[in-house]
Amino acid sequence: MKKPILNIGLIGTGFMGKAHALGFAAAPRVFDLTHDLVLHTVADVFEGAALAAARAYGFAHHTTDWRAMVADPAIDVISITAPNALHKEMSLAAIAAGKHVYCEKPLAPLAADALEMAVAAEAAEVKTQVGFNYLCNPMLGLARQMIEAGELGELRGIRVIHAEDYMNDPATPYSFRHDKAGGGALADIGSHALATAEFLCGPITRVLGDCVTMVPERPSPTGPRRVEVDDVGRAFLRFASGATGSVEGNWISTGRKMQHDFEVYGTKGALAFSQEHFNVLTYFSTQDPKGRQGFRRIEAGPDHAPYGLFCVAAGHQLGFNDLKAIEVAGFVNAIGGKGPEPFNFRQGLRIQGLVEAIQTSSTQEAWIGV
Amino acid sequence: MKKPILNIGLIGTGFMGKAHALGFAAAPRVFDLTHDLVLHTVADVFEGAALAAARAYGFAHHTTDWRAMVADPAIDVISITAPNALHKEMSLAAIAAGKHVYCEKPLAPLAADALEMAVAAEAAEVKTQVGFNYLCNPMLGLARQMIEAGELGELRGIRVIHAEDYMNDPATPYSFRHDKAGGGALADIGSHALATAEFLCGPITRVLGDCVTMVPERPSPTGPRRVEVDDVGRAFLRFASGATGSVEGNWISTGRKMQHDFEVYGTKGALAFSQEHFNVLTYFSTQDPKGRQGFRRIEAGPDHAPYGLFCVAAGHQLGFNDLKAIEVAGFVNAIGGKGPEPFNFRQGLRIQGLVEAIQTSSTQEAWIGV
Amino acid sequence: MKKPILNIGLIGTGFMGKAHALGFAAAPRVFDLTHDLVLHTVADVFEGAALAAARAYGFAHHTTDWRAMVADPAIDVISITAPNALHKEMSLAAIAAGKHVYCEKPLAPLAADALEMAVAAEAAEVKTQVGFNYLCNPMLGLARQMIEAGELGELRGIRVIHAEDYMNDPATPYSFRHDKAGGGALADIGSHALATAEFLCGPITRVLGDCVTMVPERPSPTGPRRVEVDDVGRAFLRFASGATGSVEGNWISTGRKMQHDFEVYGTKGALAFSQEHFNVLTYFSTQDPKGRQGFRRIEAGPDHAPYGLFCVAAGHQLGFNDLKAIEVAGFVNAIGGKGPEPFNFRQGLRIQGLVEAIQTSSTQEAWIGV
Amino acid sequence: MKKPILNIGLIGTGFMGKAHALGFAAAPRVFDLTHDLVLHTVADVFEGAALAAARAYGFAHHTTDWRAMVADPAIDVISITAPNALHKEMSLAAIAAGKHVYCEKPLAPLAADALEMAVAAEAAEVKTQVGFNYLCNPMLGLARQMIEAGELGELRGIRVIHAEDYMNDPATPYSFRHDKAGGGALADIGSHALATAEFLCGPITRVLGDCVTMVPERPSPTGPRRVEVDDVGRAFLRFASGATGSVEGNWISTGRKMQHDFEVYGTKGALAFSQEHFNVLTYFSTQDPKGRQGFRRIEAGPDHAPYGLFCVAAGHQLGFNDLKAIEVAGFVNAIGGKGPEPFNFRQGLRIQGLVEAIQTSSTQEAWIGV
Repeated sequence: MKKPILNIGLIGTGFMGKAHALGFAAAPRVFDLTHDLVLHTVADVFEGAALAAARAYGFAHHTTDWRAMVADPAIDVISITAPNALHKEMSLAAIAAGKHVYCEKPLAPLAADALEMAVAAEAAEVKTQVGFNYLCNPMLGLARQMIEAGELGELRGIRVIHAEDYMNDPATPYSFRHDKAGGGALADIGSHALATAEFLCGPITRVLGDCVTMVPERPSPTGPRRVEVDDVGRAFLRFASGATGSVEGNWISTGRKMQHDFEVYGTKGALAFSQEHFNVLTYFSTQDPKGRQGFRRIEAGPDHAPYGLFCVAAGHQLGFNDLKAIEVAGFVNAIGGKGPEPFNFRQGLRIQGLVEAIQTSSTQEAWIGV
Repeated sequence: MKKPILNIGLIGTGFMGKAHALGFAAAPRVFDLTHDLVLHTVADVFEGAALAAARAYGFAHHTTDWRAMVADPAIDVISITAPNALHKEMSLAAIAAGKHVYCEKPLAPLAADALEMAVAAEAAEVKTQVGFNYLCNPMLGLARQMIEAGELGELRGIRVIHAEDYMNDPATPYSFRHDKAGGGALADIGSHALATAEFLCGPITRVLGDCVTMVPERPSPTGPRRVEVDDVGRAFLRFASGATGSVEGNWISTGRKMQHDFEVYGTKGALAFSQEHFNVLTYFSTQDPKGRQGFRRIEAGPDHAPYGLFCVAAGHQLGFNDLKAIEVAGFVNAIGGKGPEPFNFRQGLRIQGLVEAIQTSSTQEAWIGV
Repeated sequence: MKKPILNIGLIGTGFMGKAHALGFAAAPRVFDLTHDLVLHTVADVFEGAALAAARAYGFAHHTTDWRAMVADPAIDVISITAPNALHKEMSLAAIAAGKHVYCEKPLAPLAADALEMAVAAEAAEVKTQVGFNYLCNPMLGLARQMIEAGELGELRGIRVIHAEDYMNDPATPYSFRHDKAGGGALADIGSHALATAEFLCGPITRVLGDCVTMVPERPSPTGPRRVEVDDVGRAFLRFASGATGSVEGNWISTGRKMQHDFEVYGTKGALAFSQEHFNVLTYFSTQDPKGRQGFRRIEAGPDHAPYGLFCVAAGHQLGFNDLKAIEVAGFVNAIGGKGPEPFNFRQGLRIQGLVEAIQTSSTQEAWIGV
Repeated sequence: MKKPILNIGLIGTGFMGKAHALGFAAAPRVFDLTHDLVLHTVADVFEGAALAAARAYGFAHHTTDWRAMVADPAIDVISITAPNALHKEMSLAAIAAGKHVYCEKPLAPLAADALEMAVAAEAAEVKTQVGFNYLCNPMLGLARQMIEAGELGELRGIRVIHAEDYMNDPATPYSFRHDKAGGGALADIGSHALATAEFLCGPITRVLGDCVTMVPERPSPTGPRRVEVDDVGRAFLRFASGATGSVEGNWISTGRKMQHDFEVYGTKGALAFSQEHFNVLTYFSTQDPKGRQGFRRIEAGPDHAPYGLFCVAAGHQLGFNDLKAIEVAGFVNAIGGKGPEPFNFRQGLRIQGLVEAIQTSSTQEAWIGV
């Protein structure tokens, strides 16, 4: 029996555009999706980039006019990987046209904008997705499943950090990432840490923030320019569950390329994770026999769905682009009514709200409810 | 300008069939290949499997008759993921039909068969590829490049091991892997270790083998059956360069899922690697300042081609299936005259010859030249 | 030439009493001290314990009357390992008697008491020592030396944590550690993290605290008793240097036995350390060649004084009790005028002040200068 | 009640002399020994070194005449840390004088000499000890205990390596370690690996050796001198238990300072260990629940005797010199009739025999029974 078809329109052909294209190509080959996917059209402001992407990624058409693509009734899904500042306009247009929308993170520079987007999508009853792909890792799924099953006992606390060093060098020039709309380290990558914190421990209720700018100005074509955003954004956290914790987003953490690490502990066990070895989850159980206890290194394998769809043997490891394929699969299946949206606009809004609450808390030097 | 097309025919739809299909889908999206790839036909002895694979992986046609597919003049490349015992017949048929052939490892149960295959391919002037995909890892490429550039000084030695535990349980039933044609642990996975050893240190000249069967019989439908192959195959090695070393293939190494590890050392430095963290290469340099020396953990990034084609930022990590895409890309480009075959039948034969030499050495209890 | 003699009087024969005794025995054998040490008298409230300790540790005399020992003119140094609540009275008595005093941490439950002790010692011009022995680790010395030499460039930030799990079980009974004088996790072990933070990055100027009690009551002989102290104490930090950071003390961190970890980063490099492997310092340098950068694992060796006095070869490793010997050596030499006191009462007071500032900040929910 | 006294005479004041002195000082303070120890006399050929050692380590007397010391009826135990070539003469003299003898490894350059020493000691009914202190590590004790208790099931195999790099540099001059009596890498440090192999897996029955000299000559005052010993000594092993394995001793393994590593696996579990983190034993159990299996990192603690005598809390870690104290304690208690000698001359002879068998096997290129 033939599956229904989803025609895909992709906006943007950079790093994330390529990641989406790879995800759309891999997902139906790895997963048994509710739909067949057709790579219909790719849009880029540069004709050459659009053409090259269409040829390379297998899109049937290309265009420089994303509005036309969004309006095309043949297209079912719009994938947005354009600069952050355009996410809102593009999403609203796609939603208005009745498309399902897959938008890269952050959903929008301001929570107010993200709210508008989420409300519009819900009113239009389209499916949405925000690209928090680290959550698609089978080992994060395992972590959540273990917590929900009570394997850690009662949750006590969590520490999450997302640290990289791509803004470490003060000579790195001023870019869109350094103005308010760019958001700063907390918004750019700390948002991943916040997503992980709530993914594992449930709703955060209060935050106490500390956002600091360590590189006050950066070179620009017109001379040194003042940086408006944080290089490090930290917060203490309270969860509805009673657990407490801390979070940090940091883009000047020298030497760190992808330190998305957490440690979560409860009365009966603990889990430690490092994105630098993201096919491993480390687990301590107080139920192990005395003298034999220790953090154990669980390697991803077929016991940890959906790993087995990628590879039948443990230890072979998924890569970053595989997480994107899992994300696409979840989104497509949600469109097909098989399971919930993995991380929809409402959830993207939630992260944006947490980021802003931490920023406000930092300015006000006070705890803030969220 | 349109690229020429390669029509692909795939035999087999199991784990490796899927891996090949994913590789063919990803390679042209990640790399700028010499050809466009068309997934033409997939063959499986089971009609249903063939049909399902065609639909899932995007092949235009499917068949239960691999011979017909191999004879189809429309097809340019035959990809073989059928059981080992069929590799020879299928490869020779494909070569005879003038196809380029991509065959999973081991090339054939016997070096004599592999030789016949390599000779046929060379005579027919088709391109060939054997699936030693661990060598496609950018960090192995980096290791070889560092060695060739003299960063380790004069090579002294290497230790390589490939250990897993999928045959650890004596209750695991007898299968084709346990008879002579299956080859045993040394042939099945020790072959990877041998490939790595020569990839890094150049030609092995002599071996002293030690192959042991630790589980002498395994259950079969007709009662306990004697295992004819090794569970552990080890050898001491001599290299043309003057270096010496050791190798081990082991499929009863309890707890190990993918321990393809090496340590190679020279007069000026050393490299250590573990497939369990295959996006990392660990490097010690005697040239670092006194008191500041240590093994350093180099994380894969855009400095280590072709990583950057998958992801623009370091630390995001490739997965097992990405290695398959790199392998496919190398093979396709070799067909297009851009670069050498990454690992052709002659090289596959070489590995088979090393395996047999070690087995013979073990039986004879004597050093053997290779 | 004979060295002058220091007669040692030790109060307390528990874990820390034994550690001090081992330190006094080892220090003169490992180091060339300014004095010879004589183990003169050991005091314990229990006659049997005092006698056994004298015999086991080699003290010439024993007593149940610490006041008499402190008053004994033959004794030069008083070592205090009695319960925290007695530190002040004992120290002041020893200082009044003109003894040099080596007191276990925390110096006193309240900063006000610690101040009194520090002032008294300075007035009496005796040498003092507080047992912050993790700072005596050669690898921490290396870290500070690298920072001072500018090897990390301009300091940007630090994260320090000291986490253990000895209070993880809610069934662990109420003890002196759970009342105000005990101090809680921040005072008990977070104090180590604070000491490390200032040891590496210089003076802290402001703190924003978050102290939480996760186990609100614990069993006691008279029924459940309310815990008055924090199980987790965290703070954000500002340093005089301009760096910022965070600190955490946590005694319910399931699975952690001795996680005294830090990561400190500057414009040119970073250092990461874990007490679980305390003979290793991990170092990242942005000055390493492109494509060869990574955190390098420096193993303690003779290049990292005073390691070489314990062992002439790298990699053999020091243990916890060796750090105590280093601490003793520094103290004795300070008495002999060779070098400063490693960590005197004034410094102990400083830590106590930081702990209280964080506790106050947590209650007031406001940044506090220190 | 007073304990009987053992008067100690120490020969040699270098690295190992100091280690013995520290061990004799620490052992009675950490352990409840059968005897009190008196540091009676230290001997060194250099008067100044002997005097300095006596003063530093607390020996009552010093001498340049080891023969006189050995003959002194006041002395009960002779500790030998002189050059290897003197071990035999000194040991035999001490045994003849009825002393208990603690001799550093290797017992003697030749197994024939070691045999003479072992036989003499047994005839004289004195207690003996050879300094294989890595075996005194509580985590090795735990490993053996787990194996004996069947926690790994039926033993299948072991890999042991002892690699360092102190002979890596070809410019390192010729020394006594490079002539036959020095023994080479296998004798010098591979002996530790052999000791560990039999400690864990029981008697080795057959070996197949491969000893190679990678630095054929080294500078000497009289010009380049030919090296007579191996830089790398490897062997395949057969055990009486049916297990098989491999061993390597290597002193040119660039970057390695103390890689005494093993992995031992059985039908139900595996243990991995690295001396670089010698307070940790890593354990995999096939009995852990599916999806939760992994190598777990057991940190040394009071559950692993005699760790708790050094420190009451897990994770604090023992150091190299603590292993020496454990070794001394075992020896003294054996003299006192409390427990067996930890590693006596007969066992030292056994290791020497294994080393020679491997060397012979390498020369003969044949398996040899041992």
